[in-house]
Amino acid sequence: MHQTFDAALEINLLHANQQGADHNRAHFDEWGITCLNLMSSPGAGKTVLLERTLATLNQELKMAVIEGDMTTELDAERLRQYDVPVIAINTGRSCHLDSKMVSGGIHRLAHEYNPTEFDLVLVENVGNLVCPAEFEVGEHAKVALLSVTEGEDKPLKYPVMFQEADCLLITKMDLAPHLDIDLEKLEFNVRQINPHVTIIPVAAKTGEGLETWFAWLRNQVQKSPTKQLATA
Amino acid sequence: MHQTFDAALEINLLHANQQGADHNRAHFDEWGITCLNLMSSPGAGKTVLLERTLATLNQELKMAVIEGDMTTELDAERLRQYDVPVIAINTGRSCHLDSKMVSGGIHRLAHEYNPTEFDLVLVENVGNLVCPAEFEVGEHAKVALLSVTEGEDKPLKYPVMFQEADCLLITKMDLAPHLDIDLEKLEFNVRQINPHVTIIPVAAKTGEGLETWFAWLRNQVQKSPTKQLATA
Repeated sequence: MHQTFDAALEINLLHANQQGADHNRAHFDEWGITCLNLMSSPGAGKTVLLERTLATLNQELKMAVIEGDMTTELDAERLRQYDVPVIAINTGRSCHLDSKMVSGGIHRLAHEYNPTEFDLVLVENVGNLVCPAEFEVGEHAKVALLSVTEGEDKPLKYPVMFQEADCLLITKMDLAPHLDIDLEKLEFNVRQINPHVTIIPVAAKTGEGLETWFAWLRNQVQKSPTKQLATA
Repeated sequence: MHQTFDAALEINLLHANQQGADHNRAHFDEWGITCLNLMSSPGAGKTVLLERTLATLNQELKMAVIEGDMTTELDAERLRQYDVPVIAINTGRSCHLDSKMVSGGIHRLAHEYNPTEFDLVLVENVGNLVCPAEFEVGEHAKVALLSVTEGEDKPLKYPVMFQEADCLLITKMDLAPHLDIDLEKLEFNVRQINPHVTIIPVAAKTGEGLETWFAWLRNQVQKSPTKQLATA
């Protein structure tokens, strides 16, 4: 994150954000919604992954997307074609979503729909491998994406994101044959930072790994305690 | 950048950074050094571009590198093989270099070497397409890199970086045939944000465009007013 002149102020900033995140999560729990926070560098493939996910799981799960971008609604417009609510948040000059911005999105969702009907809210964060990892937004799990084009050293160089992730998607696997990337080294580096993260190699273009991703997603929704309570 | 609770504090933060940047630039000017700030998403190819640059121009220009990374000296170690001074700065949790960090690097350079012997200092920033664009470090020009794998919409979605850039390298051109990227659309989008930026498509792997990049670099060094003064 940005350094300020005042360590206490940084702590306050993160503390206030955490309180907001807990408040958002309480809403999700109350409504029986599982919320996931998708984070990566720009262009690692968050939006195309969401496109594939919405297209495939639309009949099975009631989903909504909270779409964070600094400017433009380009990604939100792509996702609206899949006939799910997409709430666009422009962060302006801010390099990540924070819990207050997502709170605004949640309240719009609750105002325009019956929130208890939803199973899954997918938050697409601003493309940034650094800052979003430090600002929880109320999610139940964090999903990081790393494209094979980014190189096998990235988990070591940007450790916070990889420490925080519950699931790591290695994206654009179809490009791996055209690169010098050492996939075993990449996985080794990830495990050094986070031994227990679920790693799923995927290629949205060929469909490789998507069934594994969908199974992970279903499992996240099913293990939601409030959902189990609601359907008991 | 991160939002704080206090707009005045943000202005102070950027103002203090700007003062530090001006101070750094005054040192560079005094020593006849041209300083460039290289910025991009993680894995767009900043380090490999520096490797090619150091290998090719080492006999012609006296260069040094200030290498910013959150953690590790992996990139610094790669560059030290080229027999130029590489000053590594670990930013910790900070998502960008700021002028104070670079000031520390400059003072180390001046302490360990005769700074007036250098022509060019290349600053490699933390991999982040958002935050580094807002924090000048004392550079004479900003160089942004965007990989063809990141997609043609990025200039619109991350406008600050593209507004600020004096030179934009479109990297990994060798991968373009394997992607759906529309290169004309990419250039159109860049020009919408910054009509006058110099755009150079490159591929470090094949050497495509590197001569154009070296020519741009030489021109930056030659147009330095203090260098012209020093050699008059």
